[in-house]
Amino acid sequence: MTALSALSRGLAPPRGFVEASFNPPPGAIRLLGGVPAPEALPAEAIAQASAELWRDHGAAVAALQYSPAPGFAGLREWIAKREDVDPRRIVVTNGGMHGLTLAVLTVVERGATVAVDDPVFPGFVWALDIATTRILPVPVLADGFDVQHLAGRIAAGERIAAAYTVPDFHNPAQVSLSAEKRRGLVELAERHGFYVIIDNPYRELRFAGHDQGVAAFNGSDRVIHVNTFTKTLGPGWRVGWLVLPEHLVEPVIRLRSRLDVHTSSVTQAIVERLVTRDDHWYDGLVRSATRLYRERARVLVDALHEQLPGAFEIRAPEGGLFLWPRLTDDRVDPAALFRRAAANGVLYQQGEYFAADPQQLSAARHLRFAYGDRTPDELNEAVRRLAAAFRGDGP
Amino acid sequence: MTALSALSRGLAPPRGFVEASFNPPPGAIRLLGGVPAPEALPAEAIAQASAELWRDHGAAVAALQYSPAPGFAGLREWIAKREDVDPRRIVVTNGGMHGLTLAVLTVVERGATVAVDDPVFPGFVWALDIATTRILPVPVLADGFDVQHLAGRIAAGERIAAAYTVPDFHNPAQVSLSAEKRRGLVELAERHGFYVIIDNPYRELRFAGHDQGVAAFNGSDRVIHVNTFTKTLGPGWRVGWLVLPEHLVEPVIRLRSRLDVHTSSVTQAIVERLVTRDDHWYDGLVRSATRLYRERARVLVDALHEQLPGAFEIRAPEGGLFLWPRLTDDRVDPAALFRRAAANGVLYQQGEYFAADPQQLSAARHLRFAYGDRTPDELNEAVRRLAAAFRGDGP
Repeated sequence: MTALSALSRGLAPPRGFVEASFNPPPGAIRLLGGVPAPEALPAEAIAQASAELWRDHGAAVAALQYSPAPGFAGLREWIAKREDVDPRRIVVTNGGMHGLTLAVLTVVERGATVAVDDPVFPGFVWALDIATTRILPVPVLADGFDVQHLAGRIAAGERIAAAYTVPDFHNPAQVSLSAEKRRGLVELAERHGFYVIIDNPYRELRFAGHDQGVAAFNGSDRVIHVNTFTKTLGPGWRVGWLVLPEHLVEPVIRLRSRLDVHTSSVTQAIVERLVTRDDHWYDGLVRSATRLYRERARVLVDALHEQLPGAFEIRAPEGGLFLWPRLTDDRVDPAALFRRAAANGVLYQQGEYFAADPQQLSAARHLRFAYGDRTPDELNEAVRRLAAAFRGDGP
Repeated sequence: MTALSALSRGLAPPRGFVEASFNPPPGAIRLLGGVPAPEALPAEAIAQASAELWRDHGAAVAALQYSPAPGFAGLREWIAKREDVDPRRIVVTNGGMHGLTLAVLTVVERGATVAVDDPVFPGFVWALDIATTRILPVPVLADGFDVQHLAGRIAAGERIAAAYTVPDFHNPAQVSLSAEKRRGLVELAERHGFYVIIDNPYRELRFAGHDQGVAAFNGSDRVIHVNTFTKTLGPGWRVGWLVLPEHLVEPVIRLRSRLDVHTSSVTQAIVERLVTRDDHWYDGLVRSATRLYRERARVLVDALHEQLPGAFEIRAPEGGLFLWPRLTDDRVDPAALFRRAAANGVLYQQGEYFAADPQQLSAARHLRFAYGDRTPDELNEAVRRLAAAFRGDGP
């Protein structure tokens, strides 16, 4: 009897993000996922663009038929202009995870080693499972991925197929990669011939500090730059893109033609119409969204300082959707805290689920709060419930 | 220097379907792809369903956010009712090719042998490339996939991970698998423990003859039944589904969560609204589409008989989008004919591209005409141009 493929058998169920082990009380406040606020998504503009599309006979016919494998030309051009690259280097994907999968399948040999952020976005490790389970954890510092650490490991003989990092508003660690380290990582990759997989879904959501730019990434033929409309237009679209080195365009298109042909023409047609309607619309959308997220980040940070003074080491976010506070008191058991918090009606991700190196216990001292889709009232109430959990109160 | 993964390097560019080798004259009539007629797609109903969706605040919010990995509940229920299975066995995919990819990655071990139709839909062989290049060609007869042939090969010691066939209105061979052979194939799979991958995109498009049913497929725990809305609602949606044996639901969802998370919530929300609007809408849509395709098939067959009497052995299609006539005169060189036809302004797929066994020359004696998206006038003109090519006329 044949059974499942080894690939399929080898895929363990993800931990943490699937909440199976407890039943949160009704009305629990979920700070779980990097989900954009529904009120930050352009529902009216979408309704309008969509109505225009279906009224336009030629456009409607194109939206219902096959699309070119790399994506709709107008959408690729718009993306290319923002990325400051040739449109031929853009391939439209079914969102960020799909972009990561395509990157992994294209450049990671089976069983090869891949350097990853530590802490790491677990979704990447799950996508990586398709090709390899050999990871080299690289610490994420205050200025991001520790390029020196990786350089040292390579000098000591380590061979990697690729390095993975989230450079802007890191998931989960909040931080951004400095401009100098962007250049350093790319130079290291070019010198040693590995690929850098840059995962950049939060890039647009900056509300403080300075943009470190993506020119270093887009200017290198060793970088696959993965992005998505998920955090600005909504996860429901499943529309994202890759900025590829020229020599990878053809292999990626060939692979993705086999996997699923192309991204939905319907979603591409609507998204293309939305973003190209005028030169400022998308920037305006991002501006209002980031105003909302700045306010929510501030409310969350203030509430933690007020209601749990000294309990956390907190860095104020400069953008993105996550807060990654560190427990200051080593006597606090994070698993017990989580159970009490959940029982009190507040849910968040436990830091341990983001540890790339299971021997390393530092991630487990963190909590990951996703504040994007919670109102200020919910955030204040969530911290009240967390404070009660700290005091040992429970239902 | 690391380079592309072996997987990526191993994917050869597809032949035939990419027209690179010649420049057809302007105004060439393309009988190339199994594409539905634009006028058979429900553009008005789509515009209406889409407008309703974006007006409905709760539904619009859900369409813009993440969906459950297996798909929207209402859509799965509607599909399950038509397939006469438990909704838990339905997983929504990004169209038929994506369904085939998921099937292959889930049950085909790397390097394993897979029995396939001969002639075969080349897209499946391209998807299969991701796991293996070892194929066992199985002849497609007048009543479909030759189950006896496969049984004989297995009795002789051949071991296969899966068998692949298009049971209704075969691509390219037009024929449908008899009810008896459906049961026979499933029994063979159950006895020997391989999986059957059933690719059924044309199933709804019957305009003559008798439906042989899918109960044998959906009733077996060795069958992965792949289908799609591509031929009825349009390729642009990239929405399809799998009917899975219960034991494969969890592995497939786990795999697809890693590959691309889930199918677009936007497309799922619109398609769900369309098909569930009333109990008869979809059947009515299919009825008008098949009336159109019946007429086109008739026009094409009549024109071939009239303008090229005796040149082809022709079977009148009972459904689907393809005609697969065989050249009766062995002296006709199909490659030369194709070049003259292309120069005369008519394009079709050459039979040789569908040969699963390159040693077998029978497929090369066929032409594949896709008539679905060509008007009767275009079909008549296409055959006039083909007749001129037969006479050796050229521009």
